[in-house]
Amino acid sequence: MLTLYYAAHTCSLATHVALEEAGADYSTVRIDFAKAQQRSPEYLKVNPKGRVPALVTDRGILTETPAMLVYVAQTFPAARLAPINDAFAFAEVQAFNSYLCSSLHVAHAHRMRGSRWVDAGDKAAIAAMQRKVPQSVAAHYELIERELLKGPWVMGERYTICDPYLFTLAQWLEDDGVGPTRFPRVIDHRRRMSERAAVRKAIAEELA
Amino acid sequence: MLTLYYAAHTCSLATHVALEEAGADYSTVRIDFAKAQQRSPEYLKVNPKGRVPALVTDRGILTETPAMLVYVAQTFPAARLAPINDAFAFAEVQAFNSYLCSSLHVAHAHRMRGSRWVDAGDKAAIAAMQRKVPQSVAAHYELIERELLKGPWVMGERYTICDPYLFTLAQWLEDDGVGPTRFPRVIDHRRRMSERAAVRKAIAEELA
Repeated sequence: MLTLYYAAHTCSLATHVALEEAGADYSTVRIDFAKAQQRSPEYLKVNPKGRVPALVTDRGILTETPAMLVYVAQTFPAARLAPINDAFAFAEVQAFNSYLCSSLHVAHAHRMRGSRWVDAGDKAAIAAMQRKVPQSVAAHYELIERELLKGPWVMGERYTICDPYLFTLAQWLEDDGVGPTRFPRVIDHRRRMSERAAVRKAIAEELA
Repeated sequence: MLTLYYAAHTCSLATHVALEEAGADYSTVRIDFAKAQQRSPEYLKVNPKGRVPALVTDRGILTETPAMLVYVAQTFPAARLAPINDAFAFAEVQAFNSYLCSSLHVAHAHRMRGSRWVDAGDKAAIAAMQRKVPQSVAAHYELIERELLKGPWVMGERYTICDPYLFTLAQWLEDDGVGPTRFPRVIDHRRRMSERAAVRKAIAEELA
């Protein structure tokens, strides 16, 4: 039995969708950022980083979306969510997800989480970061649109753990000030993802 | 035959060391950041992201350090650089490397690459980012020192692809304004890594 700690409107949705796609037996625990529950002593015992997601397994607790997605794929091989036994194809999956976590998500985070990288009281620097977000986020989507998204799924014909992760981050595109018409392939992917039963179920639970 | 595109003093050292540890047959191509070679039309054909590292394989080109490290481990299984067949242990390896790329390396990058996240001409915001680096980088090392580095190697008794990656980023600790005496376990790890033949060979080539 797995337990996913998540918060609505965060990257934890990617793992939530993957668990659904895998047909996993799991439960969820909601962490309320508005109440700063991610910084509560109880939650810091689960994840000392004070962030979501975290996945409690019978062997210990996992964090970091790219790692958790591979864990789900590997633990539920029948769902064929990652080509783990093909070193090159698997590396392409990992490269995509690593790019999302270390480049696209980081660019996005400068809109709401600027105090990670400048003093929280420096309003001018915080605002300077926010002004750059539409440009820096769009630059990443340009690369995804042009080079990385093979279509119809991220890795081509096979749906993988790249798909729920891209879908999750693409939820934030308009709020980041990026015009979606510039990225028709990303938006088409987002639309097709939103129609999947696993995605509908995970979102319905998170927003309930 | 593999070809690693690298630049001195960058995170490409991690993959370089891993290739040495694996006993791989590979060659290297140096990219000179001082000449902006990472932005040259020739190199953008190799890696459209305009960054290092990139690894040319007979099936295509890979990028993103966490992905490349797993590729090396999986392609040279005799070196036992990652517990790929143990889903939980492998996820711990991946979680550590994902944390390095998306949190520690990102915090560090705000010292030299601030224009990724604010306008390059905004000197005050660039300086505000630089002032925060000693604190943000140190916060990540605190978690590594206290929780993540099991010892003697990152994952405990077994040397893995986490070790060259941590070693690579720990090269930059003093330049980031972080006092090394605060992190004796990280520094001890760095010292033991620096004595390994694979590390000496990779560094000697990069700095030659």
